[in-house]
Amino acid sequence: MPDSYERLVAKLKRAHLLGTVSGLLAWDEQVNLPPDSIDQRSEQMALVAELQHAAAADPDIGALLAELEAQSLLSDIVSEEEARRVVVREARRDYDRLVRLPADFVAERARHVSLAYHAWVGARKAGDFAAFAPFLEKHLALARQEAELMGWGDRPYDYALDKHDPGMTAVTITVLFSELKTGLLPLVRAIEASPVKAPAGLFNDFPVEGQRTLLTEIATAMGFNFRRGRIDVSPHPFCEGCGADIRMTTRFDTDNPLDAIFSAIHETGHGLYEQGLPLAHLGTPLGQPVGMGVHESQSRLWENQVARSRAFWVRFEPRLRELFPGRLAGVSKEQLHLAMNAVEPTLIRTEADEIHYNLHVMLRFELERRLFAGELTVAGLPAAWNALSQELLGLTPPDDRLGVLQDVHWSGGAFGYFPSYCLGNMIAAQFWAVVGKVLPGLEADFEKGDFSRLLGWLRKNIHEQGRRYDTRALVRHVTGEELTPQYLLSYLRDRYAPLYLA
Amino acid sequence: MPDSYERLVAKLKRAHLLGTVSGLLAWDEQVNLPPDSIDQRSEQMALVAELQHAAAADPDIGALLAELEAQSLLSDIVSEEEARRVVVREARRDYDRLVRLPADFVAERARHVSLAYHAWVGARKAGDFAAFAPFLEKHLALARQEAELMGWGDRPYDYALDKHDPGMTAVTITVLFSELKTGLLPLVRAIEASPVKAPAGLFNDFPVEGQRTLLTEIATAMGFNFRRGRIDVSPHPFCEGCGADIRMTTRFDTDNPLDAIFSAIHETGHGLYEQGLPLAHLGTPLGQPVGMGVHESQSRLWENQVARSRAFWVRFEPRLRELFPGRLAGVSKEQLHLAMNAVEPTLIRTEADEIHYNLHVMLRFELERRLFAGELTVAGLPAAWNALSQELLGLTPPDDRLGVLQDVHWSGGAFGYFPSYCLGNMIAAQFWAVVGKVLPGLEADFEKGDFSRLLGWLRKNIHEQGRRYDTRALVRHVTGEELTPQYLLSYLRDRYAPLYLA
Repeated sequence: MPDSYERLVAKLKRAHLLGTVSGLLAWDEQVNLPPDSIDQRSEQMALVAELQHAAAADPDIGALLAELEAQSLLSDIVSEEEARRVVVREARRDYDRLVRLPADFVAERARHVSLAYHAWVGARKAGDFAAFAPFLEKHLALARQEAELMGWGDRPYDYALDKHDPGMTAVTITVLFSELKTGLLPLVRAIEASPVKAPAGLFNDFPVEGQRTLLTEIATAMGFNFRRGRIDVSPHPFCEGCGADIRMTTRFDTDNPLDAIFSAIHETGHGLYEQGLPLAHLGTPLGQPVGMGVHESQSRLWENQVARSRAFWVRFEPRLRELFPGRLAGVSKEQLHLAMNAVEPTLIRTEADEIHYNLHVMLRFELERRLFAGELTVAGLPAAWNALSQELLGLTPPDDRLGVLQDVHWSGGAFGYFPSYCLGNMIAAQFWAVVGKVLPGLEADFEKGDFSRLLGWLRKNIHEQGRRYDTRALVRHVTGEELTPQYLLSYLRDRYAPLYLA
Repeated sequence: MPDSYERLVAKLKRAHLLGTVSGLLAWDEQVNLPPDSIDQRSEQMALVAELQHAAAADPDIGALLAELEAQSLLSDIVSEEEARRVVVREARRDYDRLVRLPADFVAERARHVSLAYHAWVGARKAGDFAAFAPFLEKHLALARQEAELMGWGDRPYDYALDKHDPGMTAVTITVLFSELKTGLLPLVRAIEASPVKAPAGLFNDFPVEGQRTLLTEIATAMGFNFRRGRIDVSPHPFCEGCGADIRMTTRFDTDNPLDAIFSAIHETGHGLYEQGLPLAHLGTPLGQPVGMGVHESQSRLWENQVARSRAFWVRFEPRLRELFPGRLAGVSKEQLHLAMNAVEPTLIRTEADEIHYNLHVMLRFELERRLFAGELTVAGLPAAWNALSQELLGLTPPDDRLGVLQDVHWSGGAFGYFPSYCLGNMIAAQFWAVVGKVLPGLEADFEKGDFSRLLGWLRKNIHEQGRRYDTRALVRHVTGEELTPQYLLSYLRDRYAPLYLA
């Protein structure tokens, strides 16, 4: 007879396994699903979500947790004991939430996620926000209902934020974003006013096959294990799955190879985090990521701090030129570097440079905050979007396709997710400052295409920690400081001022 | 409150829906799965199989069936009533079997299917039967155990056959195959001795893109709905899914475009059957195929009777020449027709022509029969295979890759499946004889690429019937006769004697 802890872990792994099945269904939905097979997929998603919820809210888990909590697992003496303590603590947190969700609510929400996704695809194509509005209304109602069920009925948006980044509240984020905005806007406006402009139109006719080869080589050099993962094509790049099977996607445009490459590097950053979680603990909280902010810190660190650096391209620029003969004949190394670090306001978040990106997130955070506070209605969303876009980005979308309909997230009811992107930027920069101190000579590694020291450090300090720490505790543990936007501001100034304001 | 019948249907659809999730996991396993993600996939398959079994063996289904059986549904008066009668009758058949399978048996078998599949892939690659033998042993033990649980412990192979083609037994098949063999061998030997040989080496350097275009056009012309299905690539072509989402696969060889094309036509035949099942009844027995023999009759009828005909290629030969300019310059229409109807003994079943194919099936049936009867051990299988191969095909495999390890089926524990292929050939020919009488002028349709009358007839008489009839009853219903190999023999003589024995 396995002991209580082993029985708990088996139950947790069962629920997690059903989660991985949902993940595969979701991946397939975006990569492969025939258009008229949507209804069945919605039903599949709903049923698996219901079963996964039932498995995770299994009363036996509650009983086992109570039993283990009563034991002397709360000491912090030996490593195996600490692992158990973390698993029990975090499993309790999950369980106490899950048992408050009725099965039919879980199934209904899963079904609505799938239906609303396809409604959004159609609405965006047609630029018809009104066609999507009822689906968004229902998602908002579901999100409020969920918060109510959880006992957060008076703070539904805080609940949404906490789901993505444990411990985060609207007030905390308002303070962090406000500090970031104060430091960022002068830099943004100065760069926008600079006579230096990144060269445009460098890339024409870069065949997909070459792009695929290059991004595969880069992902491999970064340390991604293709024996436990793959990269496919979808309209919106994403990363799905756990350490046992990672499905990343990118997209190809023959006139914009950097989009495919940087998207793939970004998703590989996510994939490396998942592959670095301890496989032995897969399915338990120790084998799970902390939250979306930390996840995003991993993708951003690779995409921005690493892959937009000069050192990175010492290794890969020759390969780029080799794979696309003649394409970059008249383009200097310096022009290429500037093109990879182009700063330009754009209407579309996913096309934004790493400076403006933060402003796109602030816009969405502000709108979500107002929606949940009842200061804004769904019907009023497009106008509010456009006004904020003008204020923060200096641009007003000509239509909703380029405005309020551009992002997939709300179609999945994923409120409280957007802030994670900006938190991820902050966390990445704060980690990077530590990396700069503890791993001297890293640039020389990068120039040789060797990322093993960096990956090793990330594995040890972040990936292998699983959910041992919450978002802010991890930042404290790794950096010795509270989360602050100041490292992001310094990093952005150090990288972009010499290029644009010298 | 829905009535009992509606509640039954909802329960059946829930179990079916979990079956479609298993189907997608299985499809993805063969099309996409990274090599080291196998263990997790095995666990996913086991868990979903367990849950599907629990849903299908739900005691509520038993109670609802008992209630409905006690009602006056057994009359055969109006169509809606008959539909209910069929659903209740067939659901009872399924249910009575499912409740005899313990959940842990279901999970263990599903897990073993996935592990044995990958063991077989490795063993086949290495030509190492001994590496696969223990997995096959375990599958045999599981199959015997299942038959035992079902109360068929004294006739485990009959149980395996009945699972694939309801009502079929080893004795029935032995009689049918014996009659077929008697008629077939003289034809086979005469063709093998004929001085006429199909031309070889006609196809070199046919780019994959052109093959993909052609087979997509053909599948579309046949009536396949790509809005509810897709075609991908896998090492072994197959068709997975139900009417709501069909996943077919093919494979490409630039020097053998006919393989991709005929494989795709074959799988499209399966796909059309699934898409033709009444969608309103999806998830109930009325929305399910009769069995594998009838399924195979649909793929074979399209692959052989239709797509190897002269009329079919009146429409598609010009397109073939157009898509591959210069490739068939010196090749006459007659040579092409002969190449498409090549008859040549081969070691590999999936490469066999439609005459020899039946001999490959007889070989496997005989070995399965002996294995289950205890006349043959797993260790003795390779030698027995080789001996029978020599006897039936006149060829002895030089190694097990080309012999006993060539097929995927046993790795999935799918004993009793192979005979369906040959039964499918017989059924297709018997249906085709009726088609020839009731749909005059069909060849003129085919010459224009119009398959709508044929598909309409198949839909009405076969697809839309779901599981109203069992295999032999359906043959009686459609053809007015018992299943017999005589139509297959006449069809083969009529097609091949003029080509090879004129």
